[in-house]
Amino acid sequence: MPAALVTNFITAIERGDLAHAITLLSDDCEYDNVPMGKVFGAVAVNDTLAPFLARYDRVEWIVHHQVSSGNLDHGVVMNERADRFRTGETWIEMPVAGLFLVRHGKIALWRDYFDRDTLLRQLAPASE
Amino acid sequence: MPAALVTNFITAIERGDLAHAITLLSDDCEYDNVPMGKVFGAVAVNDTLAPFLARYDRVEWIVHHQVSSGNLDHGVVMNERADRFRTGETWIEMPVAGLFLVRHGKIALWRDYFDRDTLLRQLAPASE
Repeated sequence: MPAALVTNFITAIERGDLAHAITLLSDDCEYDNVPMGKVFGAVAVNDTLAPFLARYDRVEWIVHHQVSSGNLDHGVVMNERADRFRTGETWIEMPVAGLFLVRHGKIALWRDYFDRDTLLRQLAPASE
Repeated sequence: MPAALVTNFITAIERGDLAHAITLLSDDCEYDNVPMGKVFGAVAVNDTLAPFLARYDRVEWIVHHQVSSGNLDHGVVMNERADRFRTGETWIEMPVAGLFLVRHGKIALWRDYFDRDTLLRQLAPASE
């Protein structure tokens, strides 16, 4: 089921197994952080996520709702999440809605909708 | 089906029939524009949308993807949209991901995820 594939992806990110998460993406996967830009290819997704995730000692992506249609060959998954990242005593928390298109058993597109300033404010609180 | 209820809501907005759209909401409906704030109650949703929609001579909410689960008594609908608003020659276009919780045949929660600055930039281009 396409929703289970997305759940596997998210739980791999949460336990720090980015290498496994990347194997669930198609080679030419599009990763679109809507207000900030997109990258293409599983390698580029890895190179985008690895340095970001390395800053945090704990990652939780809480899925409030997840709905889907289709199958592993041609599926659509959307979820509403709170993506949380901890460094020391501080948690960053981002409200996110994500779209995942599944093709031939892999995630071929991952697009997250969120508010850019809500992220940047938390990444650089000292600049407030 | 809950997805059809959401589609009815969106098409009512598009054809300028806000009064009908509002009848599809529960009396205590929560309308949450995530980065900008929320209002509670069908009357408050009407009072929020009416002055905004009145600025535009054409409204199109293009649904790229829509997925759902459950039924009209207890359903979840999510969609990826391009919400477009025309005034004169100018189109505003907002990439949005929406969550709709359906309870007892009505939309009880409508939550849109988008980038605040992407909207504000288009609402006030002269201030750029």
